[in-house]
Amino acid sequence: MMSPRGLRELASIGQFDEPTSGMCNGYIQANLVVLPEEHAQDFKQFCRKNHKACPLLETVGPGSFSTTTLANGADLRTTLPRYTIWRGGKAGETVKDITDVYRDDLVFFLLGCSFSFESAMIQAGIRLRHVEEHKNVSMYDTTIELDPVGIFDGNMVVSMRPILYNRVVDACLITAHYPDVHGAPQHIGYPKLIGIADVHQPDYGDAVDIHDNEIPVFWACGVTPQNVLRRAKLPFAITHAPGHMFVADIKNDMLYKK
Amino acid sequence: MMSPRGLRELASIGQFDEPTSGMCNGYIQANLVVLPEEHAQDFKQFCRKNHKACPLLETVGPGSFSTTTLANGADLRTTLPRYTIWRGGKAGETVKDITDVYRDDLVFFLLGCSFSFESAMIQAGIRLRHVEEHKNVSMYDTTIELDPVGIFDGNMVVSMRPILYNRVVDACLITAHYPDVHGAPQHIGYPKLIGIADVHQPDYGDAVDIHDNEIPVFWACGVTPQNVLRRAKLPFAITHAPGHMFVADIKNDMLYKK
Repeated sequence: MMSPRGLRELASIGQFDEPTSGMCNGYIQANLVVLPEEHAQDFKQFCRKNHKACPLLETVGPGSFSTTTLANGADLRTTLPRYTIWRGGKAGETVKDITDVYRDDLVFFLLGCSFSFESAMIQAGIRLRHVEEHKNVSMYDTTIELDPVGIFDGNMVVSMRPILYNRVVDACLITAHYPDVHGAPQHIGYPKLIGIADVHQPDYGDAVDIHDNEIPVFWACGVTPQNVLRRAKLPFAITHAPGHMFVADIKNDMLYKK
Repeated sequence: MMSPRGLRELASIGQFDEPTSGMCNGYIQANLVVLPEEHAQDFKQFCRKNHKACPLLETVGPGSFSTTTLANGADLRTTLPRYTIWRGGKAGETVKDITDVYRDDLVFFLLGCSFSFESAMIQAGIRLRHVEEHKNVSMYDTTIELDPVGIFDGNMVVSMRPILYNRVVDACLITAHYPDVHGAPQHIGYPKLIGIADVHQPDYGDAVDIHDNEIPVFWACGVTPQNVLRRAKLPFAITHAPGHMFVADIKNDMLYKK
């Protein structure tokens, strides 16, 4: 198995250029949001107030691009396999490297991702269909309002996993131990109550079957901040490209809270 | 407010003769099962294996009828307001006192009751309709099989509380901290999956409305052991009469587990 450092080194020389899902099993993967300093304080506050959807693991900069918590000195301009450049609230080109567009007023935000709690569920014998079928998880816009800060505002995006009816409570209790990667479910069982008209038609990701003995369980989702960026229409921002995450040197187990 | 000791003293002289629901707020109330010694080991083992439905808080006897854990020296033959005498697996007469039928081969089992975790939910602002409407909780037979020991066997009985959709996860996490009073829910949301054909027709207790923004949540129920007794057709047994519980000197908070 490739080490996180090995993967990051390959990425930094453009030789690892694919989604990180399933890579470096057991290690934290993080979403990246990069904003000019003038918006950084508001975004940080927004993450604090909306921790379930935007769990902030580490902030880097302005004036620096090297991690200290999630890895010792990883260059956030090069060690993700692929980035998306945003202009005027629109996702633009994706690039392997952001050294060209780096400015010393940029602040890097690394946010927790549900890959971490998924491995805890799988270890407990809870089956996750999208993992088994090598699909992206189903994600949905909802009517659940976020707590706004300045220009950052919008509704929560949730991910859905069909869980066998007699493991739903376990899934709830297990993920509650991972508050820094979305934590306990946001909702259990009745999609219409959170504004999802048709659970078989996700707004993002892939649809999966829900069997008669399964219950759809919904968690806050790391796509939420991207929707918030879209709404905020910032002149300039950067994120990881979908699925191309930052791979940390810290294991998922470290996120377990009693 | 009456103290638990005060209530038990009144009960022991026949002057408190009503259900204990809502009495001595904050204190543990326990279900009572009394069996001849020849069945005691099997029943104890049955409780251990089916802890969610039959959480054993204290065992007394044979040769004694005085509590030591739940209260210091309460006489279990007299301090419950009312008892049911069972013969051949059938509930017979109810009496205020079992001194007459006491034999020194009897073993007393005190089992946790959901009153304890209900107060924890109410303190967290979760509304419980049956409490607000002064009804008995709705209870149902299910297809959830218990783990049998000797003659003790059968299916789990569950209680149901309609919970506002955005508090279901909280209800799950809060009650999980009370493993000795049925703990986390047994099932969330889809009654048919556990063999309940019509949630509006409980097998025991009272029906309550379930509003459109509420989800039915099911917990293991202390009526389970009574159904097990019925099935086991023991020649002789005693239980508390429905709703007439043992009131302990220990507070519900003491049952909280991290």
